[in-house]
Amino acid sequence: MRIGVVAPARSIRHEGSARMAALLALTYPAHDIVFHPQCYLEEGHFAGSDDVRANAFLEFANDPGFDAIWFARGGYGSNRILTRVMPRLGPAANHKTYMGFSDMGFLLGALYARRIGNVCHGPMASSLGMNDAGESTGWALGWMIERDRRALEPSLADGRPAVAFNLAILSAMIGTPWLPDLTDHILMIEEVGEPLYRIDRMLSQMAHATQLKGIAGVRLGTISDVVPNTPAFAETPEQMILRWCAEMRVPYLGRAQIGHVEQNRVVPFGVA
Amino acid sequence: MRIGVVAPARSIRHEGSARMAALLALTYPAHDIVFHPQCYLEEGHFAGSDDVRANAFLEFANDPGFDAIWFARGGYGSNRILTRVMPRLGPAANHKTYMGFSDMGFLLGALYARRIGNVCHGPMASSLGMNDAGESTGWALGWMIERDRRALEPSLADGRPAVAFNLAILSAMIGTPWLPDLTDHILMIEEVGEPLYRIDRMLSQMAHATQLKGIAGVRLGTISDVVPNTPAFAETPEQMILRWCAEMRVPYLGRAQIGHVEQNRVVPFGVA
Repeated sequence: MRIGVVAPARSIRHEGSARMAALLALTYPAHDIVFHPQCYLEEGHFAGSDDVRANAFLEFANDPGFDAIWFARGGYGSNRILTRVMPRLGPAANHKTYMGFSDMGFLLGALYARRIGNVCHGPMASSLGMNDAGESTGWALGWMIERDRRALEPSLADGRPAVAFNLAILSAMIGTPWLPDLTDHILMIEEVGEPLYRIDRMLSQMAHATQLKGIAGVRLGTISDVVPNTPAFAETPEQMILRWCAEMRVPYLGRAQIGHVEQNRVVPFGVA
Repeated sequence: MRIGVVAPARSIRHEGSARMAALLALTYPAHDIVFHPQCYLEEGHFAGSDDVRANAFLEFANDPGFDAIWFARGGYGSNRILTRVMPRLGPAANHKTYMGFSDMGFLLGALYARRIGNVCHGPMASSLGMNDAGESTGWALGWMIERDRRALEPSLADGRPAVAFNLAILSAMIGTPWLPDLTDHILMIEEVGEPLYRIDRMLSQMAHATQLKGIAGVRLGTISDVVPNTPAFAETPEQMILRWCAEMRVPYLGRAQIGHVEQNRVVPFGVA
């Protein structure tokens, strides 16, 4: 297969892509990875202007020569290209796997809402050597290339449809047309670098969101790098999610192996 | 008139309430202010448990002896009492003015959505001596007690219906039943203590929110205490809001004198 990498938010460095290309050559030598030159651009906060990032994504997504689009890196910015890219995806975009997480949730959600491609929450093309010593990236490749089920978040074995999002990105999609219909889905969430009171506020939006009334249950991924705040919040993330799930009248189903951490398993959207 | 003060989020200190009572005695000696004892409670992050805060609000809002409910302080937490208080507001709650801002936006929005009372974005009962040397608090009292129009945000002179929110609180209400129908309203927003990329993300949610399609225009209050982040965001808040208003196809109408700053004018929800 041929994997195309683009960067809808922040840029990556050549060391990162070289490392990933080397891992692919070692583990799956029959397959190719192509990093779009846009991945290395830097324009303020972003890997190129909104137009440049949108065009790079469209170029690769609409190219029948690619089997998968692997997002390079998160940060902030994929929401800014949604109105540019979503109406311009052609037939070739349908037959691809899309993988990434964190800020990429905007694109994953918008693609899944329109049933374009096989959308997966999973490690990024620049995760290797950052969050990951190779195991998570290996899962990403294993899933993209040969649908290796050992890559999957373990609870998916029950066969129910699922999605996974960074909680801040999920919150920012609520009330917009980019959030897919998640009726009967298990919703997995993870978070990084937030104080607990903000996590509680985001959970409150999740619990009260009209669009999420029909979800089948919630799983909690890793909440990492919590930012301390004063006065300390008296609850743990698990206590918080239990309380909000009760208010939402949706079962809390336990933990999930996703997050901005080494154990970031693959969660294909829908039935895996 | 008799003003009742409750604290749906964080607590205040006795010095703060004494200062406010003294100002009222000096400026409007014929009127009374009553601080609910709940205002001084401290339980973790909050001025008492969710039940205690909800009950204090209900006690004063449902008491025909009060003409106005003035919120004591923001922080975080008023969203946690919404499901407890909103179904239990009786007839006496309808004939009151409600004033506050920041985290209190959850309550202001939920009250306005149900057309309960006269809802106003304005200084808090503990602002005096914090953000404010007396001018803003004077506007709050002037509006509550004698509908003194000198208190109002100047653009309201045009007679169009308006609302005002902290941007983070507005974002957290989008997609929930707490956000009022804002068709034909001018929407004023303000923010404090956020990095610019997050402000951009919140504006993106505002611009794409299905519920906000019918608003008449947007005004930008003060964006204060911006948190630096790397790499620097290349746009100013005004450039950002111009770009998102264009995407939203809603006019940007200029600045508004609201915010976590000294010049925090009163914005009654609806027509002032």
